[in-house]
Amino acid sequence: MSIPALTQKLLAAKKIKGLSFADLEQILDRDEVWIAALFYRQATASLEEAQKLADVLGLDSEDVAELISYPTKGLGPVVPTDPLIYRFYEIMQVYGFPIKEVIQEKFGDGIMSAIDFTLDIEKVEDPKGDRVKVTMNGKFLPYKKW
Amino acid sequence: MSIPALTQKLLAAKKIKGLSFADLEQILDRDEVWIAALFYRQATASLEEAQKLADVLGLDSEDVAELISYPTKGLGPVVPTDPLIYRFYEIMQVYGFPIKEVIQEKFGDGIMSAIDFTLDIEKVEDPKGDRVKVTMNGKFLPYKKW
Amino acid sequence: MSIPALTQKLLAAKKIKGLSFADLEQILDRDEVWIAALFYRQATASLEEAQKLADVLGLDSEDVAELISYPTKGLGPVVPTDPLIYRFYEIMQVYGFPIKEVIQEKFGDGIMSAIDFTLDIEKVEDPKGDRVKVTMNGKFLPYKKW
Amino acid sequence: MSIPALTQKLLAAKKIKGLSFADLEQILDRDEVWIAALFYRQATASLEEAQKLADVLGLDSEDVAELISYPTKGLGPVVPTDPLIYRFYEIMQVYGFPIKEVIQEKFGDGIMSAIDFTLDIEKVEDPKGDRVKVTMNGKFLPYKKW
Amino acid sequence: MSIPALTQKLLAAKKIKGLSFADLEQILDRDEVWIAALFYRQATASLEEAQKLADVLGLDSEDVAELISYPTKGLGPVVPTDPLIYRFYEIMQVYGFPIKEVIQEKFGDGIMSAIDFTLDIEKVEDPKGDRVKVTMNGKFLPYKKW
Amino acid sequence: MSIPALTQKLLAAKKIKGLSFADLEQILDRDEVWIAALFYRQATASLEEAQKLADVLGLDSEDVAELISYPTKGLGPVVPTDPLIYRFYEIMQVYGFPIKEVIQEKFGDGIMSAIDFTLDIEKVEDPKGDRVKVTMNGKFLPYKKW
Amino acid sequence: MSIPALTQKLLAAKKIKGLSFADLEQILDRDEVWIAALFYRQATASLEEAQKLADVLGLDSEDVAELISYPTKGLGPVVPTDPLIYRFYEIMQVYGFPIKEVIQEKFGDGIMSAIDFTLDIEKVEDPKGDRVKVTMNGKFLPYKKW
Amino acid sequence: MSIPALTQKLLAAKKIKGLSFADLEQILDRDEVWIAALFYRQATASLEEAQKLADVLGLDSEDVAELISYPTKGLGPVVPTDPLIYRFYEIMQVYGFPIKEVIQEKFGDGIMSAIDFTLDIEKVEDPKGDRVKVTMNGKFLPYKKW
Amino acid sequence: MSIPALTQKLLAAKKIKGLSFADLEQILDRDEVWIAALFYRQATASLEEAQKLADVLGLDSEDVAELISYPTKGLGPVVPTDPLIYRFYEIMQVYGFPIKEVIQEKFGDGIMSAIDFTLDIEKVEDPKGDRVKVTMNGKFLPYKKW
Amino acid sequence: MSIPALTQKLLAAKKIKGLSFADLEQILDRDEVWIAALFYRQATASLEEAQKLADVLGLDSEDVAELISYPTKGLGPVVPTDPLIYRFYEIMQVYGFPIKEVIQEKFGDGIMSAIDFTLDIEKVEDPKGDRVKVTMNGKFLPYKKW
Repeated sequence: MSIPALTQKLLAAKKIKGLSFADLEQILDRDEVWIAALFYRQATASLEEAQKLADVLGLDSEDVAELISYPTKGLGPVVPTDPLIYRFYEIMQVYGFPIKEVIQEKFGDGIMSAIDFTLDIEKVEDPKGDRVKVTMNGKFLPYKKW
Repeated sequence: MSIPALTQKLLAAKKIKGLSFADLEQILDRDEVWIAALFYRQATASLEEAQKLADVLGLDSEDVAELISYPTKGLGPVVPTDPLIYRFYEIMQVYGFPIKEVIQEKFGDGIMSAIDFTLDIEKVEDPKGDRVKVTMNGKFLPYKKW
Repeated sequence: MSIPALTQKLLAAKKIKGLSFADLEQILDRDEVWIAALFYRQATASLEEAQKLADVLGLDSEDVAELISYPTKGLGPVVPTDPLIYRFYEIMQVYGFPIKEVIQEKFGDGIMSAIDFTLDIEKVEDPKGDRVKVTMNGKFLPYKKW
Repeated sequence: MSIPALTQKLLAAKKIKGLSFADLEQILDRDEVWIAALFYRQATASLEEAQKLADVLGLDSEDVAELISYPTKGLGPVVPTDPLIYRFYEIMQVYGFPIKEVIQEKFGDGIMSAIDFTLDIEKVEDPKGDRVKVTMNGKFLPYKKW
Repeated sequence: MSIPALTQKLLAAKKIKGLSFADLEQILDRDEVWIAALFYRQATASLEEAQKLADVLGLDSEDVAELISYPTKGLGPVVPTDPLIYRFYEIMQVYGFPIKEVIQEKFGDGIMSAIDFTLDIEKVEDPKGDRVKVTMNGKFLPYKKW
Repeated sequence: MSIPALTQKLLAAKKIKGLSFADLEQILDRDEVWIAALFYRQATASLEEAQKLADVLGLDSEDVAELISYPTKGLGPVVPTDPLIYRFYEIMQVYGFPIKEVIQEKFGDGIMSAIDFTLDIEKVEDPKGDRVKVTMNGKFLPYKKW
Repeated sequence: MSIPALTQKLLAAKKIKGLSFADLEQILDRDEVWIAALFYRQATASLEEAQKLADVLGLDSEDVAELISYPTKGLGPVVPTDPLIYRFYEIMQVYGFPIKEVIQEKFGDGIMSAIDFTLDIEKVEDPKGDRVKVTMNGKFLPYKKW
Repeated sequence: MSIPALTQKLLAAKKIKGLSFADLEQILDRDEVWIAALFYRQATASLEEAQKLADVLGLDSEDVAELISYPTKGLGPVVPTDPLIYRFYEIMQVYGFPIKEVIQEKFGDGIMSAIDFTLDIEKVEDPKGDRVKVTMNGKFLPYKKW
Repeated sequence: MSIPALTQKLLAAKKIKGLSFADLEQILDRDEVWIAALFYRQATASLEEAQKLADVLGLDSEDVAELISYPTKGLGPVVPTDPLIYRFYEIMQVYGFPIKEVIQEKFGDGIMSAIDFTLDIEKVEDPKGDRVKVTMNGKFLPYKKW
Repeated sequence: MSIPALTQKLLAAKKIKGLSFADLEQILDRDEVWIAALFYRQATASLEEAQKLADVLGLDSEDVAELISYPTKGLGPVVPTDPLIYRFYEIMQVYGFPIKEVIQEKFGDGIMSAIDFTLDIEKVEDPKGDRVKVTMNGKFLPYKKW
């Protein structure tokens, strides 16, 4: 799986317009991370959202049609090589089992949903070096017995 | 790589003592996730921390020696099969590139450290179903030029 | 990941007692597939369920403790070699995208939960050869926007 | 292996005509899942079926020729990254061995055919959240001895 | 997956008794290849077959119990390294698509069953070098439409 | 590795001419499976064979040149996803070691050649369902000692 | 992931101009290895750096825009086949654990940053054969406890 | 491949004796990294070196015999999960091609030997955070033409 | 697949007796490389050869029985990590296609047998550094047409 | 990695000119295998060699420029599927460890260089079937201690 062509177009248009994701957050009334996910075709816009985006970025109707279609998700590769993305893989490798222990102790047998889920990114200024704060918030889903 | 034998011993002792990770948080003055990471030998205790844990859980001196040694990290497999852990892999697959875009827009070219890094898990009660809140906080490291 | 030792013990005890999964369904008031999943440590028993099973199959308290603990799930290998299990992999390879199209048309962008989920197996007698009927029933989870 | 170009054409034509798979079910007298499988070139149409589809969707004779040819099947990747499709992989990982136990107990040594096989998808409305019901029905094939 | 311990025991007993698979073919009234598959736990004996084998090879009742249980099949690795077994992988790599073309031309869309299936091996003497003749015979299964 | 462009051209020309592989067997005086292997560029034609084929199928001189060149063989993927081809992979997984035992018992340490090798496919009509008969015939090559 | 098209353009322009990386080091006031990393889009130029490079190599404004964008990093493949690059993989395979032991003994539990990091290459002339000297210099990052 | 049992024994003895690799450097007159490589059985001691080590660490004659034998090298896994070791994999992924360009420009077509090769690790104190300095020094080997 | 236990026993016995493979070549009247292959259970001894070896190395009858049995061959891993063995993988990666071109030009379409095959290793003394000479000699097998 | 476009051009030009690699050996005063390696861009020509080749095969200046550039080497795939090339992989799998034993016994701990290395192919006529003789000659490189 590779980055969709539309992603390049959206990123280029955004750059030319001089817009940040935070600006788009204002315009679309959606979180900047969700909008970035939409750019990479990992999320689906409503018609209204797609048209707002088309107005702002100068997209054509074909682009709108693609933005409201349901995408195939997951961008690979199996183990990411990009250092920024790899760190999230490393966190899963190193802290995956500890996270599982703590979640299960608090909630029982089940998972954190990655669907009924939000993800926010915040810049925390710090004189010793700014920090990235990533907040994930997913519904706990207990295993159903039958 | 597989789960260390000490992990089983620690988890069993903790269960017998009827202690939660939150209880251990009080005793060790470390976050419950970090303690769970220590249990899985993904983190290194100081001698003092190891001895406190030994007192509480009834460990012997060999266990203490292992807890203060520097472990080989990463617990595999390449793609996790456990559904709870897999969801974090899925988040990296689906939201990895969007996260990269937003972090870079806010900070420039660099990464969120997974070493100068903390991870907290909170239970957010919600009448429509409780939610898992995972907060990651890592120092931003800009790419050095030379 | 490999088949847990307890699985062998449970399957052997069940065979010696001459019990079918359908018999256990009567005793535990749980579906036979769920019970088989419990045998393979892919599901977690309540204390009551574990004790009923211990009574019927002659298990000791350590076995009970294991049955009520939250297991690491997923039994590998990546591509199954056993022909019966492989056919489910093949179904996912051949019908995965068609299933996605039809579910999305009926429900929108989201997934069928594999957690809030049940699975039943029925034998449908047929003079031209009996048939296996597998019914999966999972809650639809729409992608949250934020 | 990647999604065939014809698939895009068929999905686009279907969207323009405003037809659902359920509508095509009426027209072709085939199940909607089978038709979706045909769209993804995982199934083969008869000449009559292909021509009906060509009439409805405005296909040319080359498309008809392709729809009646026998395709190479299986759409990859080895482990799917799309969350909807992955859940079926997860079901195979978690419930594969339990399913094998129950089928073998009911039928003996053999498999559920994925060829003499049907698959239906139903939307079950539920006030707590609609549910996806997937019914697989395959002939049991006992291992031949010789 | 690895070679079962029972396989070593069966092969050793057969060698000590000075029996060939052809001899066992006489005794069990099953083909020598099927018997070799039973030795490797890729096939399931009837109680009668298992007991005949136990008599001939001096097996105990536990071995008999194992021979009549339904095994997990497929012996790996993904790509075989043993040159004799690799050649069959090579045949699939080189002649797989040509075989598919010819079978489909003769039978239509479907597969050769590997379950309702027999496999024989014959030694064809030849002054220029003896030849191995492998005959596979599987039921053709046409894809069901629904 | 992917299917060569010439393969599509040959298969299309054969279809337009209404020829079966059995018809080509008559014309080229080569087995239909070998001809299908030639179509997929897994075999090399003599100039005479290539020209006969060019006459029958209307090929140009470049096609002839390609048909007489020595191809890179093996069509991948590592584990085939097409159900028809996969069954041969499954046969190797399930029956590979048993075949090795029987061949070695009959011939000693060595292999069945996949080069000095023929493969035939026959349709065996059967009221309970027609059967595919695949006959492989390869020279036995004993391991040389030195 | 594959070599970007811009890399070819930059390398070709550099060759035509008869410039070495050492020459560019003079012009850009950056180390030659960093400049080579920029050529392969593994590093990001400032606008000033990109324009200097554009002047020297005759690039257009689109190239400048690409050079200042934040790239996806990591050039694959998983195990490199090029012998020069493979040797660095081999060094990691053979000396990885020993390096870890020595760094941990000197610094404690943590890592050498690959982000706050420089890499220099020097030619050391030697009558018995010139030597390549690679100096890596990365900040030590101790594991944070929390 | 996994860590040899002797490695654990050597590391434990070294810890009990309270020796650093720098201490062993004095005793053996070999670099500390080479000694760590010897501990992990990635290098071969002379009899004299092995006996010195045996005296210092209290090893028996079997250990000496193992230390002077030629080991199978490379400690896996294919992609390391330990964050410290992974960073060297990342350096190869990110800087591999740039390093190749610069080495080839300075030396021509060839490689840096990983056999006629030394590797040193130095701690560079720095008020902004100490730094790890890794120096690799390998003979350049030009490709032979013949 | 891993190194057989017998291999360790044979290598240890050979070392204790102070024998080289060249010495064993004299005793067994087989090439030293073939004998090393026998040690690693990649080749099969005749009873006479096995007994000679048993006399020289002090083996028991079980070892003899193992040496005359037909082994599963191929020692993995898929890509070797040992530098000496890797170089042969590298030769196949770099020179595989060129070798194919030259062999085909000289012989036509076919392969060099790895079964009817010998391999010799010679030490060629050279003042600029001794050289390893590996001579492979395999029967050419032309592709059979049928 | 895939076969370079230039390779096809060179092979085609050589065929049209009716030249064998042995003919080119005469013209370039380089071994035919080395020339084949140059064709596949696994070796680098001097300007003089490239121009001689350009004269003989009718190449343009761009081709010459490519032939003197330093290529990325290794032609994949990880495990070759072409039977001729696979046999060299099989030799490494089966005889890799035995070769290592014999080389180490003769030379000590080190490797055969694949860089200071030549490879020749000879046709040895034999009434029982011609034989392929491959001679590899590489400098022995002892592991440096430091």
